[in-house]
Amino acid sequence: MDRMTRVRALEWDDTALLLLDQRLLPGRVAWVRCSTPEEVASAIGALVVRGAPAIGVAAAYGMVTAARLDSDDAALEAAARHLISARPTAVNLAWAVERVLGRMLEVHPSDRSEAALVEARRIQDEDARACIDMARHGADLVPGEEPVEVLTHCNAGALATAGIGTALGVVRELAARGRLARLWACEARPVLQGARLTAWEAVQDGLPLTLVPDSAAATVLASRRLTAVFVGADRIAADGSTANKIGTYPLAVLARRHGVPFHVVAPTSTVDLRVPDGAGIPVEERGPDEVRRLQGMLVAPPEITVFNPAFDVTPPELIGSIVTERGVARPPFGDALARLLESEQ
Amino acid sequence: MDRMTRVRALEWDDTALLLLDQRLLPGRVAWVRCSTPEEVASAIGALVVRGAPAIGVAAAYGMVTAARLDSDDAALEAAARHLISARPTAVNLAWAVERVLGRMLEVHPSDRSEAALVEARRIQDEDARACIDMARHGADLVPGEEPVEVLTHCNAGALATAGIGTALGVVRELAARGRLARLWACEARPVLQGARLTAWEAVQDGLPLTLVPDSAAATVLASRRLTAVFVGADRIAADGSTANKIGTYPLAVLARRHGVPFHVVAPTSTVDLRVPDGAGIPVEERGPDEVRRLQGMLVAPPEITVFNPAFDVTPPELIGSIVTERGVARPPFGDALARLLESEQ
Repeated sequence: MDRMTRVRALEWDDTALLLLDQRLLPGRVAWVRCSTPEEVASAIGALVVRGAPAIGVAAAYGMVTAARLDSDDAALEAAARHLISARPTAVNLAWAVERVLGRMLEVHPSDRSEAALVEARRIQDEDARACIDMARHGADLVPGEEPVEVLTHCNAGALATAGIGTALGVVRELAARGRLARLWACEARPVLQGARLTAWEAVQDGLPLTLVPDSAAATVLASRRLTAVFVGADRIAADGSTANKIGTYPLAVLARRHGVPFHVVAPTSTVDLRVPDGAGIPVEERGPDEVRRLQGMLVAPPEITVFNPAFDVTPPELIGSIVTERGVARPPFGDALARLLESEQ
Repeated sequence: MDRMTRVRALEWDDTALLLLDQRLLPGRVAWVRCSTPEEVASAIGALVVRGAPAIGVAAAYGMVTAARLDSDDAALEAAARHLISARPTAVNLAWAVERVLGRMLEVHPSDRSEAALVEARRIQDEDARACIDMARHGADLVPGEEPVEVLTHCNAGALATAGIGTALGVVRELAARGRLARLWACEARPVLQGARLTAWEAVQDGLPLTLVPDSAAATVLASRRLTAVFVGADRIAADGSTANKIGTYPLAVLARRHGVPFHVVAPTSTVDLRVPDGAGIPVEERGPDEVRRLQGMLVAPPEITVFNPAFDVTPPELIGSIVTERGVARPPFGDALARLLESEQ
C-alpha cells in the first residue's frame, strides 16, 4: 500500500484472492475469499469488486486460481473466457486475463501456476505504480498554488485499483501537496459508488468531501469555482471516446458549459485501440432491481420498465486531457494515445 | 376528478384536509388528516404533499382550518405567515395563502370561515381546470400525428396538483389522443418522486413508462428519438428563468445539445413577476439525511458533508416554451409572460 491511502480493495494470501466486499461498504468491512475462477468471476459480476483496474487485477488472480486447479490449455482457456465474460465494458478485464494466459501458455504446464502468480503480482504492482504516476501527471494539470475544489464521479479510487486510485489518486496527490480545498463527489445512482465508496475512502484518508446527488452536480458546476473534474474510465477508444460510469457524459457536457476542465484518468491498460470510437464500446445494461429497490425495498411499482445502463460514453471533444501513467494525452487523442501506447514504459 | 386520472392528492372532507401521504407511495396508500394550519404546514414541510400547485391548494385549505380556530386578523395573519414559511421555493404557496387571507379580510370575522372555504374550493377548481387547459396547449406543441416518446423529471402529475397534473397532464392528453408511445421518467434523487410518484401515477392510469436513474437521462436523450421534454415548475421569474426539481437544469442543457425541445408546464400562479430573474428565486436546501440514508439506513459515512439543494434554476435561453392555462409563452419570455398574466382568464 502506498503511504497516501489506508484503503485496499484486494489481497492475495497465497491460497486465495481476498476481495473487500464493496457491496457492504460503508456499513461493514468484510472480505470475500475466492479460490476458483468461477468464484472470482461471480464476485466481479456481483460488484464485490469493481473499477476497471481492480477488476483486471482480480481477474489476473482468478487465472492463478484456475492454474492451480487445472493447468491444461483447454481448462485455462475456458477459465479465461469465463472471467472475461463477467462484465463486458471494462477492457482491463480481458487485457489482464489474456496477459496472464499468454504468459502461462509460453511455459510447461507444471510451471504455469507459478508463472501466473508472478504475472498477476506484476500486474498488481504495475497498477499500483501506475496510480502514483497518474496522480503526479494529473495534479500537475492543476494550475496555480492555491488549494482548489475539484469534482469527481462514482469511485475511481483505491477501491477501483490496486493502488491509490486513478481520479482519486490525483485528488490524493493534490491533498499531499496541500492543494485540496474540497472534493465534490456525485453519489452515482443506482449503485451509489460515490456515496458508499468514494465518501468512505475520503473518511479513511481524511480528505474533505461533500457528497451531492448526481442531479445537483450541475448546480455545483454552475455556482462554485471548481478547478477541474477528474473521472476514471472503463474503456477508452482509439479516438479518446471514454466509457465510464453512467452520468459521466452529462457531467462532461455541464463542465464544458461552465468552463471547467474535464480530465479522464486511467492507465494505458484501459485504452482499447481495437475500438475506433465510442460506438464500438459495449455498454453493460444491468437489472431493473438496482433502480427499483433501495436496501431491498421497492421504491417504484414493480410493473414499470427500467432502463439501467451501467456506463455512458463521453465523446473526445468534451475531454480536456486523458491522464495515463505514461503521460498526458491531449486532443486530438487519436495520435496522442497511439504515441503513448507505443512508448516505452 | 377528471376522467383522465384515478389519482388524487388531496380532499376537503368538511372538517379537515385529507392529504394522500406521498412519502409512503408506492408501497402504501394512506391519508393524513390536518385540522390546523400547523398540521398543514408541517405536512407540507415533511413532503406529505408536494408539487407547487398542490402545495398552494393545501395551504389554501390550511387557511380554512385557521379561520375555524380563530378568525381574528392577527391570528389569520400569523397562520398565513406560518404556512408560507413551510417551504421557500414554490411561489404558489404564498400566492394561495395571500389570496385566501385577502378574501377573508374583506368580510366580517363571522363570515371568514365560509369565505375561506369558498376561496379554497375556487383555487382547487381553478387548478383542476388549469391542468386541463395546460394539457391541451402542451399536447398541441407536439408536431405530427404519430405516437411519440417524451421525457419528464420528478413528479408534475396529479399528485402535484388538484387535477391531472402539469407536465404529466400534457402526457395524459397525449395518451388520450393516442399519441403516447412512451414516457421516460427520471427517478429524481434524493426523494425519488419520479420512481415513487410518477411511476405510480403511470401504473394507476395505464401509461407506458420507463424509469431511468437521473444520470441516465443524458443517454436517453443522446440515443432515442425523443420528441420533447416536459417538466413542471416551482417558480418562474419574470424573464422565464424556472426553478424546478434539482436535475431539471442539466436536463435542459442536454436536451438543447441533442435538439430536443424543452417545455415548462405550469399555471400562471407559478409565475412570480416580482422576481426579475433566476438569481432572485430562493432555493431550498434540505437536510443531509435525504442523501445519506436510504430507507433509514446509512449509505454514506455520517462524517461527510452533503449539499442537497431541492431545486435548480433553468435559464430562459434553454426553454422552448412555457405552457400555462392561459396559453403558451415563447421567447423572449419577459414580454410573453407579462402579456399572459395581464390577459383575462
